[in-house]
Order: sequence, then structure tokens, then C-alpha cells
Amino acid sequence: MMAIAMRRAAAAATHAISSANSSSILTRHLHASSGKKKIVGVFYKAHEYAEMNPNFVGCAENALGIRNWLESQGHEYIVTDDKEGPDCELEKHIPDLHVLITTPFHPAYVTAERIKKAKNLQLLLTAGIGSDHVDLQAAAAAGLTVAEVTGSNVVSVAEDELMRILILVRNFLPGHNQVISGDWNVAGIAYRAYDLEGKTVGTVGCGRIGRLLLQRLKPFGCNLLYHDRIKMESELESQIGAKFEEDLDKMLPKCDIVVVNTPLTEKTKGMFDKERISKLKKGVLIVNNARGAIMDTQAVVDGCNSGHIGGYSGDVWYPQPAPKDHPWRYMPNQAMTPHISGTTIDAQLRYAAGVKDMLENYFKGEEFPAQHYIVKEGELASQYR
Amino acid sequence: MMAIAMRRAAAAATHAISSANSSSILTRHLHASSGKKKIVGVFYKAHEYAEMNPNFVGCAENALGIRNWLESQGHEYIVTDDKEGPDCELEKHIPDLHVLITTPFHPAYVTAERIKKAKNLQLLLTAGIGSDHVDLQAAAAAGLTVAEVTGSNVVSVAEDELMRILILVRNFLPGHNQVISGDWNVAGIAYRAYDLEGKTVGTVGCGRIGRLLLQRLKPFGCNLLYHDRIKMESELESQIGAKFEEDLDKMLPKCDIVVVNTPLTEKTKGMFDKERISKLKKGVLIVNNARGAIMDTQAVVDGCNSGHIGGYSGDVWYPQPAPKDHPWRYMPNQAMTPHISGTTIDAQLRYAAGVKDMLENYFKGEEFPAQHYIVKEGELASQYR
Repeated sequence: MMAIAMRRAAAAATHAISSANSSSILTRHLHASSGKKKIVGVFYKAHEYAEMNPNFVGCAENALGIRNWLESQGHEYIVTDDKEGPDCELEKHIPDLHVLITTPFHPAYVTAERIKKAKNLQLLLTAGIGSDHVDLQAAAAAGLTVAEVTGSNVVSVAEDELMRILILVRNFLPGHNQVISGDWNVAGIAYRAYDLEGKTVGTVGCGRIGRLLLQRLKPFGCNLLYHDRIKMESELESQIGAKFEEDLDKMLPKCDIVVVNTPLTEKTKGMFDKERISKLKKGVLIVNNARGAIMDTQAVVDGCNSGHIGGYSGDVWYPQPAPKDHPWRYMPNQAMTPHISGTTIDAQLRYAAGVKDMLENYFKGEEFPAQHYIVKEGELASQYR
Repeated sequence: MMAIAMRRAAAAATHAISSANSSSILTRHLHASSGKKKIVGVFYKAHEYAEMNPNFVGCAENALGIRNWLESQGHEYIVTDDKEGPDCELEKHIPDLHVLITTPFHPAYVTAERIKKAKNLQLLLTAGIGSDHVDLQAAAAAGLTVAEVTGSNVVSVAEDELMRILILVRNFLPGHNQVISGDWNVAGIAYRAYDLEGKTVGTVGCGRIGRLLLQRLKPFGCNLLYHDRIKMESELESQIGAKFEEDLDKMLPKCDIVVVNTPLTEKTKGMFDKERISKLKKGVLIVNNARGAIMDTQAVVDGCNSGHIGGYSGDVWYPQPAPKDHPWRYMPNQAMTPHISGTTIDAQLRYAAGVKDMLENYFKGEEFPAQHYIVKEGELASQYR
């Protein structure tokens, strides 16, 4: 709640400042300027891992593989993982950067304050999908363009979700833990291991990732449900074999497995709170690769402790990186990882290529593919409204 | 090799004894006798877990849920988990039991010696799939019937294999280990995490489990290969979308992921030895839910240590239970569990029902479904020849 209040206040402040300066959104129009640019990228450091795979382009050291290309055109390209606090490397470049490339896997929070300081900023690119680390209202008010590499992670995340569903349903981790601790106790695994076949799986949100997940689930012989603002076209729906549920709270109590596939917005923040979780089936399994803050952190812990939630898996946390004392690390029946699903080597190659394409368009003053825009000419993309 | 030699010697000895006693296979013919039977079941103990799930029928305590039914008909039903050594509970009942029910998850080894001692034995039932813990040659020579609940585990194992493929390809376990140890290092996971999409997956053996796996893999957009003695019918093959590879050693070097779906026989024992592994792609991922002894144990360890094998997962070991010092517990990039995939609650309910049906047939002197027979009238089923 505090975060929402702060975000709203910040957006309002930005509006106020914009008006006070009499700046119109056109003063920062994306394609209005040309010449040499200062581009800053914020990615996770790989240290010893940077050298271990030539395709590992997503880390700070390998910098999306675009350094030579950018520098050969005379642009300046600063890359860092140092993104927090007033003395961090990122902060030093905020006043004069033109383009900021960030990633959800190591999010540089682009606050209204930073946007205000970034007088030359024109373009915010997300290397990956999910731009909620950017204050989109403030970006819109300041006339910035925000764009993602839409589609770059969808296969990766859908695969990862199906993996996590199977890990929870089949009770994989207790078995693996027996192996590494020298034990062998089949009963201690089997008493709560199930097949996925025949179970009811519901996805909350059914955009591209949700659909790819449902397509992959189809041969498993499940009962597939989806909730979204709009029903799929009938042909696609019957091809995928899933049933539309208009009312979320009518769908949820039917589900053995709930998968969250909706972006984090002010509407979805904390949507799985104590009350909603209490209405889920006892023993429900939850997979959330969307955003950690869609869950009420403590309600998930309480549900896992009581057994009302039979298992929880996902790669998203609030905040990120998850601190050492984040309670999801220590709750029973969790199958969590750091934020990883959309940054496989395959996904890195896709989003690096997507960022390069958009930079190329930007340098030439050309439009991006329409689906990449998150904020354009003061307007937020529909999924963030 | 020693085990094979012993098995052969034992089978020969049984033949000799049968001849010496002038017993024909008909003296033990399954459907020739009637009356009250002594039935012994050997299952894993569940201890505190036995009470935790009313459908947990596969453990010794819950005894397939058929005790009341058997005893109400006057049959004797002994159930134990104590199966090893000359003083074990099973050994006491060998001389006068009529039916022995065993399971691959806690295998009671039915040796030629035990078969020789079991003068009343008529029927060996496997609660599950995979009867290689029975000396099938000796059983055939002694005129016993051996039957499994064919189909009871196929969905369970196919699902489990796909889970393990995803766990290895996406490098799940290092990420989970970071979570429980309080770390956060995306690079340490991502540098060797991939999507399954676009990879080449080959199954060695393509019976029911292999086909169910391929069907579930289809929407992932992989390149699917299979090796078996016979090619599928063209229609099924094109529906499944997999390519037949007649020559195993031509298929294997093409595979990013190798899945073993062939029974353990004298031909397949140790088939993945040092030489064959050396011809696999560097970094190959191997999933083996078939039988541990299809692998050369040390060759797998060496392959994982050198990195030639990029990851190894499966639920089968040799021997089982795996001893505390089994080297697969301690090799890098393993995602092993105890033998669990075919004993989910759903699978238990299926194989308990299948065992009950076969006992019902047996009491009535009726035939079993043809596909359940592993040894019948002195003949082994084709997959064990």
C-alpha cells in the first residue's frame, strides 16, 4: 500500500513539475533528436560466469553484445550493475544519458526523481519483459518512450511455469533432498505426489505466456481454465482446449493449480491476500512467475505453514534481489528460484537482438514494432493501465 | 557382468531341478488350482506417512487397500517390507505362499533360489511396471505366471521425464539451492540455462511411455527423434511429430537430450558405458527413469565430473534402495530422486486396482488382460526377450 501511495504522489509531483516548467511532452519526443548518444545499460554482473558461455550476453560484462556496434558509430555506452543509492554508478550518469537500458532480472528502479534529473533522457528500453520497475506514469508525463522486447521471454516463461507445476504436483524436491542427504524414503515423497493428468489448472491472465502455457498443458489431459479481461476467439479457445472464466473468484476455488500470468499493476498488486487465498482449495499449488508483489508476502507464508497452500513456486519476489531474510526462502513446500525464467541463454539472445533493433530504429528516427511500446506519446500500453 | 552370469547359472539350475523332479510346467499352472490362498505382498513402509493420505494405498501399512476384500473371502494376506537376507519376514513365507505381490519401488528380489523353495507359488504379480527384480528365466522354467499392471505407470513416468528434462535444461536446481542458502546470483544460473524449444530430444526405446513423452513434448517445438526395434505406423508418427532412427549410435550424437525408455534386459544392461557416453554431444543431458543398470554407474559419474554429461536425472538406481555412498548422489549436475515416478497417488490407485482385478481373475480361473503377462506358460513377453 505504501508503495502505491508513493507512486501516485510521485506521478502527481511529476505532473506538477512538468506544468511548472511549461515543458510539453514534445520537448522529449523520441525521434526528434539525432547525433551521438550516451547509452547506459544496467545488468547483473556475472563475474567468473561471464567467460563460461560465449552466448551469455545478458550480463554486465557482455553488455548485450552490442558494445562494438555502438562504439563504432561514435555512441558512448556505459554498463554497470551498480544501481542503488545516491552514490551508485547509475546515478552519476542520470543527468546526461539519452537512453537507459534496464532489465527485470536486476531492476534499476526508474523513479520519478530519477526521471526528473535525467534532462536528456528520451528512451527507456527494457531488455526483457516487464517494466514495472519504471514509474510509468512519471515517464508518460515526462514524454519519455518506454519499450520492451515483447515476445522475447514468452516461451521461456511458459516452459518454466510448466516445469514448476510438475515439480510441485509430483513433489520433486523432497525426493531430491533425500538423495543429497543420503536418505531413501519413497513413502515420504509418494504420500503427496500426484500426476498432473486430470487436475484442474487455472491461469489468472491469459496473454501470450498464458496461451503458450495452455498449449503446452494440452497433451497432459488436464481441465484447463483461464481468466482474463477478454475471452479468446472461439477457434483459438477450442484449439487450446481451455474454458473461459469471467469471474476470477468463481474460477479460483475450482483449481488444483493456480498460475499467475498477469502483469503487476495497481489493480493486481496484493491481489492474492489472506482472504483470497482462504477461498482457494485446500492444498492448492500456486505458480507465480509474473511478479512477487501480486502476492501478499505474509499471506503466502501463512498459507504454506498451515498447509492451505500445498506448494508455492515462482521466480519473482518483492523486492528483488530477495534479501537473505525474505520469508519465502524458509516456508515449507516452496520451489522458488531467483528471477531467472526469462533470462535463459535463448531468451538473452532474443532480447539482446530486440534491443539492438530498437536502438537502430531510434538512431534512424524510425518507429518500433507497435507491440514493443509500453509508454508512447504520454500513453501507457493497455496492460499497464 | 557377474549378475548376468549368476542369473544364467540360476536359470540353468532351475531347469535341471525341474527335470530332476519330473515336474512339468503344468504342475504349477496358474488356473489349475482353487481354494483358499496365501498371498504375500512386499511394499515400502510408510510409518508416519501412512495415515496422511487416505489414497496412499501403495505402502505396506495400507497394503493396496485389498486386505478386507481378501480376508472376507477367507484368503490369508501377509504384508511386509522385510525382504532381504535369510531371516527376513518374506523368507518365512516363501515355502507356502501361493501368490507373491512385489513392487519395483521396493523390490523383493525373486531369485531362482526363492522360486525353488516356493513349492506352492503360482503367481507373481508386480504392483506397478518392471519385473526385472524377478528371475524371469527361472520363473518361466518353473511354470510360474508373472504379470504386471501394464499401463498403470505410463502417464506418471512420461510426466516425470518431461519434468526432469525441464529441470536440467532450465538449470532449476542451482537456482533453488541459492534460495535456500540465502543467495541471489542470477548469472550463476543463467550462464547454463536454456529453453527446451529448438533442442533435439531423442528417446531410446519408444513404447507406451516414450510415446506419451513425445506427445507431451510436441508443443515445445523440439526436434524429436526415437529409436526402437520397430518404426511406428506412419499416421501415429506424423501425429506425434517424431523421426525414427533405426541406428541408435547414429541417433545419439544428434541429441541435446537423451531419454532412456527401454526395459532392463541382458541386452540393455550397461548399454551406456564409457565408450557410448563419449560419443554423445558434449554437455548432453540424460534422463533415465527406466532402470539404473542400463547405465555404467562409474561412466556416468566420470561424464558428469568432466562436463561431458551436462546433467543427469532419473529416479532409478542400481541397486535400490541406493546406498548412502552411491556415487550418483554426489556427482555434479545431478537431479536424482529415489524411485518415485510410477508411485504417485494416482498411479498407486491404478496399480492397486489392477492387482485386485488380476487376483479376482485368478480366483475365478480366468485369464488376465493379455498385455499384463510377463511370463506365461514358460514364455517371456517380447520386451524381456
